[in-house]
Formats: sequence, structure tokens, C-alpha cells
Amino acid sequence: MKIDVNSDMGEGFGVYQLCDDAALMQVVSSANIACGFHAGDPTIMTNMVRLAKQHGVGIGAHPGLPDRQGFGRRELPFSADEICQQVAYQLGALMAIARAEGTQVAHFSFHAAMGNIVNRDAALAQQVMELVARIDSSLIIFAQPDTIIEHAAQAAGLKTLTLFLADRAYDAQGRLVPRGIAGSVIKEESALRARVRQFLQRGTVTTLEGEEIAVRARSILVHSDTPGSLALATIVRSEIEASGHQVAPATEVLA
Amino acid sequence: MKIDVNSDMGEGFGVYQLCDDAALMQVVSSANIACGFHAGDPTIMTNMVRLAKQHGVGIGAHPGLPDRQGFGRRELPFSADEICQQVAYQLGALMAIARAEGTQVAHFSFHAAMGNIVNRDAALAQQVMELVARIDSSLIIFAQPDTIIEHAAQAAGLKTLTLFLADRAYDAQGRLVPRGIAGSVIKEESALRARVRQFLQRGTVTTLEGEEIAVRARSILVHSDTPGSLALATIVRSEIEASGHQVAPATEVLA
Amino acid sequence: MKIDVNSDMGEGFGVYQLCDDAALMQVVSSANIACGFHAGDPTIMTNMVRLAKQHGVGIGAHPGLPDRQGFGRRELPFSADEICQQVAYQLGALMAIARAEGTQVAHFSFHAAMGNIVNRDAALAQQVMELVARIDSSLIIFAQPDTIIEHAAQAAGLKTLTLFLADRAYDAQGRLVPRGIAGSVIKEESALRARVRQFLQRGTVTTLEGEEIAVRARSILVHSDTPGSLALATIVRSEIEASGHQVAPATEVLA
Amino acid sequence: MKIDVNSDMGEGFGVYQLCDDAALMQVVSSANIACGFHAGDPTIMTNMVRLAKQHGVGIGAHPGLPDRQGFGRRELPFSADEICQQVAYQLGALMAIARAEGTQVAHFSFHAAMGNIVNRDAALAQQVMELVARIDSSLIIFAQPDTIIEHAAQAAGLKTLTLFLADRAYDAQGRLVPRGIAGSVIKEESALRARVRQFLQRGTVTTLEGEEIAVRARSILVHSDTPGSLALATIVRSEIEASGHQVAPATEVLA
Repeated sequence: MKIDVNSDMGEGFGVYQLCDDAALMQVVSSANIACGFHAGDPTIMTNMVRLAKQHGVGIGAHPGLPDRQGFGRRELPFSADEICQQVAYQLGALMAIARAEGTQVAHFSFHAAMGNIVNRDAALAQQVMELVARIDSSLIIFAQPDTIIEHAAQAAGLKTLTLFLADRAYDAQGRLVPRGIAGSVIKEESALRARVRQFLQRGTVTTLEGEEIAVRARSILVHSDTPGSLALATIVRSEIEASGHQVAPATEVLA
Repeated sequence: MKIDVNSDMGEGFGVYQLCDDAALMQVVSSANIACGFHAGDPTIMTNMVRLAKQHGVGIGAHPGLPDRQGFGRRELPFSADEICQQVAYQLGALMAIARAEGTQVAHFSFHAAMGNIVNRDAALAQQVMELVARIDSSLIIFAQPDTIIEHAAQAAGLKTLTLFLADRAYDAQGRLVPRGIAGSVIKEESALRARVRQFLQRGTVTTLEGEEIAVRARSILVHSDTPGSLALATIVRSEIEASGHQVAPATEVLA
Repeated sequence: MKIDVNSDMGEGFGVYQLCDDAALMQVVSSANIACGFHAGDPTIMTNMVRLAKQHGVGIGAHPGLPDRQGFGRRELPFSADEICQQVAYQLGALMAIARAEGTQVAHFSFHAAMGNIVNRDAALAQQVMELVARIDSSLIIFAQPDTIIEHAAQAAGLKTLTLFLADRAYDAQGRLVPRGIAGSVIKEESALRARVRQFLQRGTVTTLEGEEIAVRARSILVHSDTPGSLALATIVRSEIEASGHQVAPATEVLA
Repeated sequence: MKIDVNSDMGEGFGVYQLCDDAALMQVVSSANIACGFHAGDPTIMTNMVRLAKQHGVGIGAHPGLPDRQGFGRRELPFSADEICQQVAYQLGALMAIARAEGTQVAHFSFHAAMGNIVNRDAALAQQVMELVARIDSSLIIFAQPDTIIEHAAQAAGLKTLTLFLADRAYDAQGRLVPRGIAGSVIKEESALRARVRQFLQRGTVTTLEGEEIAVRARSILVHSDTPGSLALATIVRSEIEASGHQVAPATEVLA
């Protein structure tokens, strides 16, 4: 089976860098590239596109709210129309940069607060996904399984790729346990390896309460802005390969 | 003959507005829309695209340097690569917004300092125009006749539309007399009408020194950020129509 | 009696201007100067300070949320500490510019959303006012009468000057009728003159419901960002002088 | 003898951090705090002021050009008046934050391009230093010895503290060898220790050409934005103490 490993990339700004993008680009198969609102700028975006092209990594738009100071994590009071306009602007910017580099954007993955806002409002999600479909109907939408975003993307005729977060605890309903709750983030290497292995072998995750539940996912998300992200991505990749699976970008996973 | 009338549009920001864009959009045939770097934002850009579509006005990208404070008029020390990346980013952003609104970008016109920097460096102009051609080879480049930008656009296989500035004095070489020199800006209505009429009837302009020289142009540029821009555009339009010509966007002028 | 006339000033940015600050500065007695977060920049602030000094106008800090795009009108999710830090930063910036110009900041007046947030949270208001008092205990705080801000300023040992808004309707509790409700904004000149005259002669305002209630105020606020603000300020000033009162900045009103 | 060790601090932005400010604050005696233009924001500035106060570290303003994207390293075309206004704004902002925290700004040290521009223009340097003196005549100006800035500060009646850069090569004229030239940056620990020791014992530095020249300096600058800055600062401090000298902030060095 083909499995994607994706990570948020290019989330620096000017002299600032959040992670070692160049190293991480050699491990993941899909890069969600910040588009200049919560992070990134035209130069960083271009560098990410070049690295992705060079390593055969799938290029994705990673739009966020226009909030560099808050890294796109604050829920700011934008209207549905404003969010759509922000999505179109950022997606188009990356599409043109990709085209200028002789390649193209393959997928789409919301950043932080923008994703949270969209994911709790079915009407907004529908409006955004129809807009994305008008801009490029071949884009693959990254989403947690069984969420408003996944459903809206499918209703808009867009392909979707569902995510498994190896380093985050799940509850009995298959939702992420919020950061801040004890045990919500898994950091220990052997535990991480075990979770990835279980997901690959049985398609399940053991919840915080200890129950084993099914996880419908074809891409594993590695948070690039946490310490050790490069090591985590390397673990995920090696477990996939050790399990006899193949790491591949979204377009190949869905092919 | 078909003649285009173009103006820079959507150069506001938040609560700020530079001109009455909605009124001007009813007079011009091509709108050069600011793309969020020197002015504009996703909401204003969307509004401009909607107005342009509604009035049959050609939609153009009007990229500038990332310098909102200086309105893109300061020549900032960017490298050739950075300028290319800024152009791709802004052009793509507007293309996606246009596509989301069911229309498309037809032309491209540099703003202020970005245009000045490109127009004095043939290698840079070539690099930018090849990049634009990779992004969308159907775009029409607006340029002063016989300039580095016009030549670079043609060398990159792009169509060009040349500009006449009715409210600016020309020198014997057909170049604009720099602002600040006495007589460089024509403000009086009867003089403006006479210049437009002479251009339309004889294809010439009388220089600051009094000589009549040929002007190769198919579009008249009206500066939107000067007081009276709406009146000036209306004069230009009425003179074109009174001369038996037709006001039409760039794509029709070149058809 | 001495009455202050105040207005928000210097709320432009780069090429953008919201009102004719230079003309308005000749009519008001106190200028609330934007401090670079919701509007303004070091150059505009310096120009405002120079104009104020030249015309004997009281200089006030007019801090807002860091939200140029939304002109400081959006309630953004900042913590109490962040708001205090934003206030200190902006107030200090204007104090140093005033000192560099050989003058000083005399008063303090919140802008829009920052004021609204502070004015509904007594603990926050107390924290902000104690911070302002530590920075400069001689500052005069502009406030609506009987509000959380007025009380907090007094508790922090700061002088206050209360405001009357001639162009806004009041309800029976002496609060402003929210914009958007019919009749909330008074635009007609004769009505405005009558309201100013009534306030000056009887110290009252007639509410939207028709009742006459007392208004405890020593400064009349003129909104600079509404069309006709200059005319309104001129009306207010002429009515004050016609009533035998004297227009004077906050420090003289409280002297 | 008392010797100051200073470093640029608080040069992060939002989620971004350039160095471990909290650790470095325990080693230096003077902190040059970014003031929100090239880096920093009100929250970071407040945190730096608190840390400095807690550790007895001298608080300095570290103003830069308004260029977050370029980290204040690009020479942008600002006028002399604009630079003065930018200095006043940033200095005042930090002064108010310090006052709000019950302490005060003790010194002033230019950042990067702003310093370079001022240091090559005696008229501008004079204008800036007179402005600083009007804002707070007790401030100590950090400067390389025998530079335009040092002379201008003294002419404006301001105290100065001169700098030694342990990790940078000097030429025969006592100027820094520009970065980029081989040998311009000293990275090896034993070489660094030897340079600090020589400076402390003999008041000299050995130039890139091998000549020993006098260095008139009372403060050692450690670049915080280079890898290993914390280790370098620790080396400098331990060498000072091992030499029988005392690390102390600027006010004590000059007392």
C-alpha cells in the first residue's frame, strides 16, 4: 500500500526559520507550504517548491489567516467571504510560483485557526471548497476523516486524503484530544513507533482511554514546528518502509 | 479603430481608498488591479474583479514592491530573483481570485518602482517576462513603446499593448518628462482634450519643446491617484467616441 | 467656562489620509493622535505634534489595537497583559516624539475596539490605568462619563475629562445609541447646532426617546473620519464661542 | 576595572526566536532590546525588560529600520527626518515599557543598517544624537571608538561607551574587517579566549595583518544571532572575571 507522509513547510519569515525544511523535505512525501499570510514569503515559497520538485515531494498549499504575529493560531473575526478571498489569494500565489518553477500544486491543507473555523461551519466549508474547486478542480484536500471539511470537499467534487496524527492522542469518537490535556501529545520514540506500526498493520489507534478504534487514513501528518520533528518524520518513514508499504505523495496514493 | 482606456484600480487598503473605483470602473476598459503588496488586499481585489466583470472591463494584474508604507514608489534593494518571486506571487493571487469569480486575468502592468527597476535592466526584464510567460502565456503586457519591458515581453513571446499618457508631457525622444519639471503634468481640460484628439487623429503628441512626434500606442493610461482622475477618464472616453473610435479592453484591441 | 473640542487626528498611513488634519487642527483644542498601530506612523505623528504645537492644541495619545487592516475596529483576542503592553508601547512612542519636538503629551484617549474592550472589563481597565499612571501620572484620561474607564482612571489617581458627542444620539441611561439604529447619528446642521447650544446652556441632551437628561461633560468629540467632520468641528467651535464660552485644551479646562 | 558585556536581545517575533534570550540574560550585563521595527514586539520587549530587571542587566534601546522581512539589514531609502522619527518612536516605546515595569532605559545602540547609515553621515548623526538628547539626556550611547556616531553623541552632550568585538577581525586602522572576507569572523574558542585576554590585559587587539593595535573599549559586544552566542558570552564573562575585572552594566562602568 502507498502511504503519504506530510508536514507543514516553509513556515519561516525573513531570517526566522521554524524547522530544518531542507532536511525534512528529504523525508516527507507531501509538503504543505505556507503561503505568506501566517508565515512564509515569496522567496521561501519558491525555495520550498524547488526543494519539493527536486525530491519528488508533492506540493500543497497551506493557507492561514493573515496573522503573522499570532502564527495563524488566533481565531480572528473574519467573515465567510473574507476567508474565501484569503484562501483564493494564497492558493493562487503558490500555484503561480509552482508554475513558474515548471511544476504544480497537488494538494491543499488548512493551517491552524483557519482550519478550525472552517471545520466547525458546514456552510462556510461548502463555500470554501466550491471556491477551491473553481480555482483548480484537480486539487486533493487533506482532512481529518469524517469531518466537515472532508464532507464539504467531497460535495464539491474534490478528492480528499485523510490524515493520521501519530503523535497525538485520539478519543473514543476518533477525534484528537486537545493539546493541554495530559497525554494528548505522544513524544516517546518507542510509543510513536508502536502507534505507527499498529496503524499500518491493523488500521487502528488505541485511544487515550485504552480502546482500539479504526482510523481511516492514507497520510501521516508530522508537525514540523515541534522539537524533534525531523526525527519523528524519519521514524514514521522507516516504519512505513519496514512494514512493506511505500511512502508516496498524495497523487500516487490516490492513483 | 479600437482604443483601450486603462487605469490603476483597487489601490486602497482597509478603510482607505485612493479614488472612486466603482465610478471609474464604468469609464475605463482595462483595470490594473493592485495585488496586495503596495496596495490592495484579497477583499478589495475580489470587489474589483466583480466590478470589472460586471462592466466588461479587462482585468489586469498590477504588481508592486512589498512596500505599503511607501505605496510601492520607493526603489528598494531587491534581487532579480526576489522581484520575480514577488511578481509570480501577486499575479497568481489575482488569477485565482479571478477564476473563483468565473473570469480571468487578461493583462499585466507594473506599478511604479517595480516597473522602473525592471525597465532599466534588460536581463531582469527578460527574466521577469519569461517567468510571466511560464505562468500564463496569453497575458498581454502593458508597456511604454520602445522600452526594455516591451522588448523583453516580445522576446518572451508575450503580446504587448503600448500606452499613451494624455496628462503627461513627452520629450523629443518620446519619453515622459519627469514629474517635478515644470509642464510635466497637463491638468487643464481643454489642453487634455486637444492632446487626446491629436493622438487619435494624427497618432502624434506635441513635445514639451513644441515638436510633433509620432506616438505608437493603443491604450490611454489615466492615473487614478491624481485628483480629477474620474473627470479625466471621462474626457478621454468621450474624445475617443467623438472621434469615431471605440473604447475596448486590451484583448479586443489586439484581436 | 472653558470647553475642549477634541478629534482623532493623524489616522492616515503612507499616501492615505482619512481627513484634512491640517485644517482640522486649526479648529479643535485637543488632538488624539494615532500611534502607529491602527493608523499613523512616526512621520505622521511628528507632523501632527508639530501642527498641534503651532496651533496651541493639546496633544493626546490615541492608542489602538495592532490592526491596520481593520482600522482598530475589530475586537481581536488579546490578553489583558498584551493590551497593557500595546498601550505602553504606543503611549511611549508619542511621548518621545513630543519631547523631541519640545513639547509633551497631555492626554490619553482610547481608539475604537481597544476602548470597547477596556470599557467592559473593570479589572482590565484598572490594570491599564495603573500602567498609564506609572508611565506619566500627569496625563488626563478622556472618557465617557460614568464609565468603567472613568472610574478606573480616577482610582489610579489620574485626572479625567468627560466627553459629549454632539453628533450621536443618547438613550435614557445616557449611553450612546449604537450606530446602525435609526437616528443614532445626527447629521443635519441645524439639529447639531441646537444640540451643542442646549448642552452649553443647560448641560443637557435630549435622548432619542425625547427626554432631556443631564450630560456631565467638558469636552466635545468630533469624529474626524466621517464626511463633513471639518464643518462639524467648525459649528461646534462657533457655538461654543457664541455662547460666551471659551474653547481650550484639556489642561486648561481642568486648571 | 569594570567591563560591560552587551548583546542584542529580544530579536524574535511572534513564535520566532533568534536566540535563547532568557539564558543569555544571565550572562551579559547590558541588553540591547529590539524595539518592534526590525524585530521584537510589545510583549517580547516587556519580557526582556523584566528579565533584565531581575538579573541586574542594563536596559538599552536597539532601534532599527522598519524592515521586519529584512531584519533591518537592508539599507532602505529613508530621509534624515524619517530616521530621526523612527528613532524617537522606538526609543519612546521602550522607555514607557521600562517605566511601566518600574525601571528605565539606560543606553542606546543602533541596529544594523540604521547604524551603518547614521555612521557614515556626520550631519545625520548629529541630528539623531541631538534628538536622543532631547528625549533623554542621561542615555549612554554605545559606539565603536572614533566613529561618527561616537563624535556626534559627545557633541550632543551624551555619554558614550565604546565597544570591542571579540569575534571580529580588525584592520590596521582599527576598523572591523567586513564579513565575507576570509578571517573576518573568529569562531575558535581558544582564539576567542586569547583575544579577550589580550584586550583585558594589554588593551590591544592583533589585526588581521598581524599587527598589535590599541583598542579603546569598555564594553564587549556578543552577537546574539550567531550560533554559539551563549557559549561566546560565557567565555567572555569568565575571561573578564578570571582577569580580575568585574562585569558591570554601562552605568556602572561609567560611574
